[in-house]
Amino acid sequence: MNTIEKLTEIFKEFPGIGERQARRFVYFLMFKNSAYAENLSKLIVELKKESSQCGECFRFFLTAKTKSNLCDICSNSGDNSLLMVVEKDSDLESVQKSGIYNGKYFILGGLVPIVEKNTKNRVRIEELKNGLGANDAIKEIILAFSLNPQGDYTDQYVREELTEIVKKKNIKISSLGRGLSTGTELEYSDNDTLKNALKNRQ
Amino acid sequence: MNTIEKLTEIFKEFPGIGERQARRFVYFLMFKNSAYAENLSKLIVELKKESSQCGECFRFFLTAKTKSNLCDICSNSGDNSLLMVVEKDSDLESVQKSGIYNGKYFILGGLVPIVEKNTKNRVRIEELKNGLGANDAIKEIILAFSLNPQGDYTDQYVREELTEIVKKKNIKISSLGRGLSTGTELEYSDNDTLKNALKNRQ
Amino acid sequence: MNTIEKLTEIFKEFPGIGERQARRFVYFLMFKNSAYAENLSKLIVELKKESSQCGECFRFFLTAKTKSNLCDICSNSGDNSLLMVVEKDSDLESVQKSGIYNGKYFILGGLVPIVEKNTKNRVRIEELKNGLGANDAIKEIILAFSLNPQGDYTDQYVREELTEIVKKKNIKISSLGRGLSTGTELEYSDNDTLKNALKNRQ
Amino acid sequence: MNTIEKLTEIFKEFPGIGERQARRFVYFLMFKNSAYAENLSKLIVELKKESSQCGECFRFFLTAKTKSNLCDICSNSGDNSLLMVVEKDSDLESVQKSGIYNGKYFILGGLVPIVEKNTKNRVRIEELKNGLGANDAIKEIILAFSLNPQGDYTDQYVREELTEIVKKKNIKISSLGRGLSTGTELEYSDNDTLKNALKNRQ
Repeated sequence: MNTIEKLTEIFKEFPGIGERQARRFVYFLMFKNSAYAENLSKLIVELKKESSQCGECFRFFLTAKTKSNLCDICSNSGDNSLLMVVEKDSDLESVQKSGIYNGKYFILGGLVPIVEKNTKNRVRIEELKNGLGANDAIKEIILAFSLNPQGDYTDQYVREELTEIVKKKNIKISSLGRGLSTGTELEYSDNDTLKNALKNRQ
Repeated sequence: MNTIEKLTEIFKEFPGIGERQARRFVYFLMFKNSAYAENLSKLIVELKKESSQCGECFRFFLTAKTKSNLCDICSNSGDNSLLMVVEKDSDLESVQKSGIYNGKYFILGGLVPIVEKNTKNRVRIEELKNGLGANDAIKEIILAFSLNPQGDYTDQYVREELTEIVKKKNIKISSLGRGLSTGTELEYSDNDTLKNALKNRQ
Repeated sequence: MNTIEKLTEIFKEFPGIGERQARRFVYFLMFKNSAYAENLSKLIVELKKESSQCGECFRFFLTAKTKSNLCDICSNSGDNSLLMVVEKDSDLESVQKSGIYNGKYFILGGLVPIVEKNTKNRVRIEELKNGLGANDAIKEIILAFSLNPQGDYTDQYVREELTEIVKKKNIKISSLGRGLSTGTELEYSDNDTLKNALKNRQ
Repeated sequence: MNTIEKLTEIFKEFPGIGERQARRFVYFLMFKNSAYAENLSKLIVELKKESSQCGECFRFFLTAKTKSNLCDICSNSGDNSLLMVVEKDSDLESVQKSGIYNGKYFILGGLVPIVEKNTKNRVRIEELKNGLGANDAIKEIILAFSLNPQGDYTDQYVREELTEIVKKKNIKISSLGRGLSTGTELEYSDNDTLKNALKNRQ
């Protein structure tokens, strides 16, 4: 493979990028001046050097000058009685950016496939248990997964796995509320959404 | 205007139909045999003859042999302690088809525009009040509007208008629950949905 | 089936209309006043009474006062040395509306399926031959089918079927030109379009 | 700006990439191991080192071992009596990949904006003239621009600019053929496409 083909293969791994667009990226780079390419190249290496995975919530973050192995959310103040468990980094980003939540996070690293034997290899359930064991501040765990069959299954799975520890430490477990979301039109709602909206009326 | 143009104008009023499709409907009818057209023509007239508006919930229904001025939901048994207020007939159909609700309905006939003087001319708020005044079975009114600014505004409007009567008759008012709906992905959720989902966690 | 269900079934046959929209049409009609429904009903019957199929080009048209069995295009002046063969009424409408063509038409009544035995039952090839036999004005037949495999196959089929008669009567056969169409971007063109565009460069 | 923000800005310049996807690219890179990032970084620099712009057709290409300043199409055999003038590198790629054309290319570097004073600064019209002046093999120039107003305008512009030289050197100028392209349905065709298809029937 020549350099064009090699780069195309790499860009194809980028999220949402297919063969055709990967190739357009390569031609775009050939077309831009050397300074642009060198800057991009340098920043990619710096990004990896500067970023590490938080020892507590497991998200990726820029270490910057801190030299801490904790991300800014885990090391800063904020409500440490709340722990929101999410699937992935971008879910955390989305909640954090909304400004509606002031607690801590834990990134599970995936959803639990409904048909799967070795679940523990896929998600950080042991890391979650260990973290809870060493932490006496947490009063409530909020399970915050997308509303689809796999998210539902993961919700149940985590609840079961944590049964013992939340009982022992007297921690409450909750899941995000369900019902109408922004833009939901009654006429076109599915049965589950209507059922949740009716059950959770207030 | 010739018959093709006249019919095109009429079909353009059908929900979701533009000029081009309206015209295709006319050509479709020219193309079909006469029996088809006569059957359609006859059924349209029959539909109007057989249908009337329910005196209690205000939806349109087929009178059939009953000769009653009440629709089957209003005249049948079912939980008459619950009254769900919806915007339009198709919302009622959607909830009814889901099989999750066994109570009565009231069709408001529209949402309240946010900028509008003569609201009362637009929705059946007086009819709703009169109905409640004459009914001692109702224990809870469920406001079930689509989740958008106009739906929100209508929710508030109806609550205000009913303040006195629900107090006097000791009726509870609730609104459909809000939060994640089927298919909601955390990463792409808007702030309002996240806020509702967090607030209504359980 | 009650009237609502019967009408829904009929509207489901309308071009591009599914179950859900068919049902919305019925509720829309229940909701409109009787005058609207009666007018629609009456116009549908009138449309069928006033429309007939042209004895020459086979399109459907409004007979109006003329009492002729020929449509306005076939009976009017215009270039009767050109005959454009199209698949269906709406193709004729589209060409006619563009104002680029002043000749006559023939509606084949369909495309020829690539895998099919009894082709003659499906398209009006015999009617086309008979029409040509009785007509000495035509100098050129223009085959105007959509550019897809079935359209291509129909083009070949008609050319073969007409071989003898066009030779005998010294009629030219042509097909619509191929190449770039409005909006075609070179970068995203398929090979066939590029090939036609290159071959037909001028 | 921190490294995440800087990289996001750079990815936003990539073709077809907006703010949100640019940010997803950055998180994707943080998430991948260092080897992946280093490989990508290295290949980007190599790509720029290995690529140069062809001295004749002006496309970007990998120099590889050749050390020639001509790309493989310009230096290889092939029909050097044909010169296809295209807007950009990806147009050339598309035609070349189709395998329908065996001649040479010239990349104009853009389309000529319809309202613009200093056109010459935008496209390589002088380079094209100079190239033609020094080349006695070319017998036909094929203008191959996308079929939109700007492409049309560029076609006319290039024809005017080359009037003198093609006359002097007896070179033919042609443009890609127009008409139905793959998938065109007669019923939904625009007037220009119908007009071209009719005019170019054969």
